Amino acid sequence: MNKTPHQTVAILVIGNEVLSGRTREANAWFAADTLFKVGCKLSEVAIVPDVHDIIVSTLKRLHHDYDAVITSGGIGPTHDDITMQCVADSFDVPLLEHQDTIKLMTDFYGEAALTEGRRRMARLPQGAKPIICEKSIAPGAFIHNVYVFAGVPHIFESQLLAVLDDFKGDKAFIRQEIEVQMAESKFAADLGKIQTQYPHIEIGSYPGRCGNAPCGKICISGTEENEIQEVMEVILLMIKGKETHENQ
Amino acid sequence: MNKTPHQTVAILVIGNEVLSGRTREANAWFAADTLFKVGCKLSEVAIVPDVHDIIVSTLKRLHHDYDAVITSGGIGPTHDDITMQCVADSFDVPLLEHQDTIKLMTDFYGEAALTEGRRRMARLPQGAKPIICEKSIAPGAFIHNVYVFAGVPHIFESQLLAVLDDFKGDKAFIRQEIEVQMAESKFAADLGKIQTQYPHIEIGSYPGRCGNAPCGKICISGTEENEIQEVMEVILLMIKGKETHENQ
Repeated sequence: MNKTPHQTVAILVIGNEVLSGRTREANAWFAADTLFKVGCKLSEVAIVPDVHDIIVSTLKRLHHDYDAVITSGGIGPTHDDITMQCVADSFDVPLLEHQDTIKLMTDFYGEAALTEGRRRMARLPQGAKPIICEKSIAPGAFIHNVYVFAGVPHIFESQLLAVLDDFKGDKAFIRQEIEVQMAESKFAADLGKIQTQYPHIEIGSYPGRCGNAPCGKICISGTEENEIQEVMEVILLMIKGKETHENQ
Repeated sequence: MNKTPHQTVAILVIGNEVLSGRTREANAWFAADTLFKVGCKLSEVAIVPDVHDIIVSTLKRLHHDYDAVITSGGIGPTHDDITMQCVADSFDVPLLEHQDTIKLMTDFYGEAALTEGRRRMARLPQGAKPIICEKSIAPGAFIHNVYVFAGVPHIFESQLLAVLDDFKGDKAFIRQEIEVQMAESKFAADLGKIQTQYPHIEIGSYPGRCGNAPCGKICISGTEENEIQEVMEVILLMIKGKETHENQ
């Protein structure tokens, strides 16, 4: 739908069920991983409640700040599904029944079963293109730089995959990890120096626990496999030096 | 630490590992559920990368918009741990070594093991109170309305529980769910009317799939058990009516 791939992307998750702890967020996580693998890094995730003015103001901010925004949730038939209306209001356009979708629904369900709820799911902001996927007759929408997807995970995933080309960077990101059996504080200063030497590679350190002993993972990511390999070797050598020092 | 409980709370998750899909967000989820059960609903979650200016601008926005902000992540000893510096910069105060923490660390590790990395973890924004928990010698911090917690889940959880009294509302929220074996669109209009009749109760509808058949859950939450019970009965009756109608 989009001619040049998006450099900066935000996800707006809409749903009281996430903010109340009922539901563990899954769609931003899927999108983060899927986009990373095609060379696009998420810039921000915002999770907000099913409240019209908050959705509109957050969407306007993200629309302004990033190349693209993906919304998740709130496009079903019930009273708490207000995302399409909010998107329309954000761009100051009306919400209109999309006639091709009405026709698809009539063919599929029969005219008698075209309830008000189903008609609601056939409405798009004026000017939006429908995003069709194989998991749902009701479409997502694309308007300006905003992709409107469902909250139900298998539909969200299918909708994102349907437009994934819009997000493909020149090169995929690659990630490698090194397991470390010592406290971060022992190698923190040296790891920082390595990061400074390789500014195009992103080095992260994530501590954990192995029983009561400290352990963790050092994560190296970037687009160039040979650079990542080089940094891994430098880090492994540094860690080995610390281990030897410890055991002396 | 705080005299009146917070009405509106945002969580700021700081971490490239979440935005790249490496790590599935866990702390906002834990906090959402934990706060809900003590009568406090999350208002927003923001997930941002380990980038100084983005952290500072997001923290300032959340600090301004909500009664309280909880940050998660970026308080370890490595180069990518910049949260304490960002918090200090947000409030225009210096970052200072916290002498009680230095003493605790010296007693625990011995002076020789007080590395630069560990010293970094003993720094707090001037004026901040340390948040002590049983899972970590390095403290979290509380300054103005901002709680600074670790990203490692067992430490984050322990730090949140250490200050949970600050978030306790007058009444805990309660949640009940009804399983439904039909498409949302069949009951959407009637469910909306019930929501209008009970404005103090929050009704959400979350579709799923049972094989190829539509099914889902209706979630009812609020603070008053008898009201929730009443709404459940009204919804169950409505759903039963639809089922009877379907089978005729």
